[in-house]
Amino acid sequence: MQIQKIMQQSAQAFETYRQVTPAVRAAFLETIATELEAQRETMVQTAGEETNLPAARLNGELTRTTNQLRLFAELVKEGSWVEAVIDSARPESTPARPDLRRMLLPVGPVVVFGASNFPFAFSTAGGDTASALAAGATVVVKGHPAHPRTSLLAYAAISKAVEKSGLPAHTVQHVADEGYETGKLLVIDPATTGVAFTGSFNGGKALLQYASQRETPIPVFAEMGSVNPVVFYPDALITQGPQLAQTFAASITLGMGQFCTNPGLLLGIQSDALDNFAHMLGGAISASAPAKMLHKGIHAAYSKGRAKILSLEAVSLVGQTPEPAEEEAWPAVARTTGAEFLQNPHLAEELFGPYSLLVSCADEEELEKVLRSLKGQLTTTVVGTEKDTTIYKSMIALQATLAGRIILNNAPTGVEVCAAMVHGGPYPATTDNRFTSVGTSAIRRWVRPVCFQNFTDSMLPDALKKSNPLGIWRLVDNEFTR
Amino acid sequence: MQIQKIMQQSAQAFETYRQVTPAVRAAFLETIATELEAQRETMVQTAGEETNLPAARLNGELTRTTNQLRLFAELVKEGSWVEAVIDSARPESTPARPDLRRMLLPVGPVVVFGASNFPFAFSTAGGDTASALAAGATVVVKGHPAHPRTSLLAYAAISKAVEKSGLPAHTVQHVADEGYETGKLLVIDPATTGVAFTGSFNGGKALLQYASQRETPIPVFAEMGSVNPVVFYPDALITQGPQLAQTFAASITLGMGQFCTNPGLLLGIQSDALDNFAHMLGGAISASAPAKMLHKGIHAAYSKGRAKILSLEAVSLVGQTPEPAEEEAWPAVARTTGAEFLQNPHLAEELFGPYSLLVSCADEEELEKVLRSLKGQLTTTVVGTEKDTTIYKSMIALQATLAGRIILNNAPTGVEVCAAMVHGGPYPATTDNRFTSVGTSAIRRWVRPVCFQNFTDSMLPDALKKSNPLGIWRLVDNEFTR
Repeated sequence: MQIQKIMQQSAQAFETYRQVTPAVRAAFLETIATELEAQRETMVQTAGEETNLPAARLNGELTRTTNQLRLFAELVKEGSWVEAVIDSARPESTPARPDLRRMLLPVGPVVVFGASNFPFAFSTAGGDTASALAAGATVVVKGHPAHPRTSLLAYAAISKAVEKSGLPAHTVQHVADEGYETGKLLVIDPATTGVAFTGSFNGGKALLQYASQRETPIPVFAEMGSVNPVVFYPDALITQGPQLAQTFAASITLGMGQFCTNPGLLLGIQSDALDNFAHMLGGAISASAPAKMLHKGIHAAYSKGRAKILSLEAVSLVGQTPEPAEEEAWPAVARTTGAEFLQNPHLAEELFGPYSLLVSCADEEELEKVLRSLKGQLTTTVVGTEKDTTIYKSMIALQATLAGRIILNNAPTGVEVCAAMVHGGPYPATTDNRFTSVGTSAIRRWVRPVCFQNFTDSMLPDALKKSNPLGIWRLVDNEFTR
Repeated sequence: MQIQKIMQQSAQAFETYRQVTPAVRAAFLETIATELEAQRETMVQTAGEETNLPAARLNGELTRTTNQLRLFAELVKEGSWVEAVIDSARPESTPARPDLRRMLLPVGPVVVFGASNFPFAFSTAGGDTASALAAGATVVVKGHPAHPRTSLLAYAAISKAVEKSGLPAHTVQHVADEGYETGKLLVIDPATTGVAFTGSFNGGKALLQYASQRETPIPVFAEMGSVNPVVFYPDALITQGPQLAQTFAASITLGMGQFCTNPGLLLGIQSDALDNFAHMLGGAISASAPAKMLHKGIHAAYSKGRAKILSLEAVSLVGQTPEPAEEEAWPAVARTTGAEFLQNPHLAEELFGPYSLLVSCADEEELEKVLRSLKGQLTTTVVGTEKDTTIYKSMIALQATLAGRIILNNAPTGVEVCAAMVHGGPYPATTDNRFTSVGTSAIRRWVRPVCFQNFTDSMLPDALKKSNPLGIWRLVDNEFTR
């Protein structure tokens, strides 16, 4: 079907969907979760066949996906997310102030690009779709070509929920991937009002480029990954070396390193403790096991990138697993110096897979230079004792400017779906660091504030009526109340 | 001085300024207000010479400007604007949830383009500067070429406040306008993290175009004006015709029509009452007086545009003032039909000045077509009685999708600086309808959310510490508390 027609249908469905009550919207999201749950076995089986991910991981991811839908249902039912603000009339002021009331309202059809590395949680019925539907936006999903059957199963669950909820048939539509042209047509269509994408830098950049060709600008929220630099401060290396080696080896190889928050860059200041840590990390990596990656394209890119890096004179191998079977990826940790890292910008690029680069800096000054050379990141991690965090306060402050999430003594993998999460960060980690793609705040990507001036109570949306019939938190004359 | 050096100085000042306490930031904003107040007479005198605006208006605008600075000072002192969100650790969950805390933090140097039509309130020390400084961003202002001396006076007041507050000298810098190249260099500089602009569509679009050439995307918040469509519903025209004619004639000619929210398009359904209204509106306009506009360029553009529209066969004159002196603008209201309006897209374009176009639509259907043909607007106004708003409910809902602010039975001119204000709207009214450039929410343009994971209390910013030392409103485990 023509993309233009699909987007027009979405715009038409939006006319109805944007006006349904929060209760209906919430019930719809819950029904999607129920329908996904009802076909759990088939979905896990199919996704396993298409992505090589193990059943335990996929079961966990499906639970995360249904929890996410229910979390957005709760958010919509609770209702305060619309950020209602009321400034009462002040007829006595000069000039007289009229009654002004503001809330967030959905903008229009949203295009969601499914991701390859989370066939459930960041794909057809994933967080982008859930947040857009929660906001009152209609959705057109472009399924990821690496798991077309899984995507259609998720879409079938959504379609059942659309029907059971009595919503317009085109509230959510699914477009199979037919190459780059499909994505381009979706982004440039006049009816599209926003785009969500999780994937590669080149993919995200292309979408941004398409969007810049539009007559009417729209936001493109592309999450393009990062190397998630981890700084190991000296005292932590001295006192916790063995434990850190285990923790980070596990984080680097988790899910064959196929996470946007994979710790791909490990930084420290040259010392015996750092050498010991490197030795132990190498040992821990070599004790892990090779496995298949998501699909052949990712595997080929990883193998090529890995071989290229390890062939560099400036880079040495810290550790790797035994040689894998032909179809499996070969986990490895490499090492270089701060000076070499600064001279070779390619070393700062993400290599998607079970790989990380340890950079030993000559001194504090070089560490700072390395940090300042880095582009925007999703996360950055501080590994340090209380002594470290006291001594390196300004270095930690510098780290905080790099990323959307700054972590103390945890591995960066594991992205909690909650209100405080920021899964975002300065470019090129994402295209818009004012927003997050994970957590309840992700809903803000699909709305705009609208101010109602001098409206009579009966004409106002419920969220803004005098009596506060929804019982939501509102900022009324600069005081939070409900 | 080279723009590159200026932006580097701004980035360097940001390293310090972003870390000053809210109390220091608030005192700084208040000191700017005090310093502006201290030179009120000179500023009003100078701005009067440069802009032809009367002293009463300029005095009011300067008061608005200092109030605005104080409002942002209050916002910063109160502190809840950082949207602190805390999700406590849940070690018992699978997987265990770490402690996650989020707040808004400033992004970096902001470039502010002064506007011509508000030499104080939207210029050097105006709302864009105030909101950026409140957020913790440093600012580089490009003064508007139409009032260079006024701009330098405002900058002198800011500089005194910088010094008195003990802040880095480059916290705010001023760049004189030296043509388009200056603006381009400011927008494309790598150190720039955001741009604020209020002005013409062509100006805003050019900045957006420059920004698209950057390696790292940044937000450009351009407010480019609109025609602010007003729909006069039938019963209101029957019952309130004379009063409406007075109110809207005054709004159209207020400040020689030099407001972004000037009602430039008046819509109604053909009727005797509409004809009577047109007649009365024409009379009211002809009773107003011509006057000088802000500068020669605006006057020339207005005169040319006015002459062109009135020369069209499809357009008739509803009313105008007596012929003005050569340097003055000639206020006028013209009229056309819905059919002609739909055929001639140029009639929907803004003509900046004391002018409005009344469009009489054949019927409800044509009115809807006209509304659907319109692009994004800053405001749209509903003029209707209770009877009207009951009958035309869906037409009013359609109006609400057009603009950032929807007004009932008020003139659109007059933009209150408060928490609920939205001075923004769908493109081409602005380049980003998720934000406002007036009111306390304008601060959100200059910040990004940052999440702190597993941080010890002493390492957290005050806004996120367990004891809530700032006493701000926070969302803690999904409950609003302080």
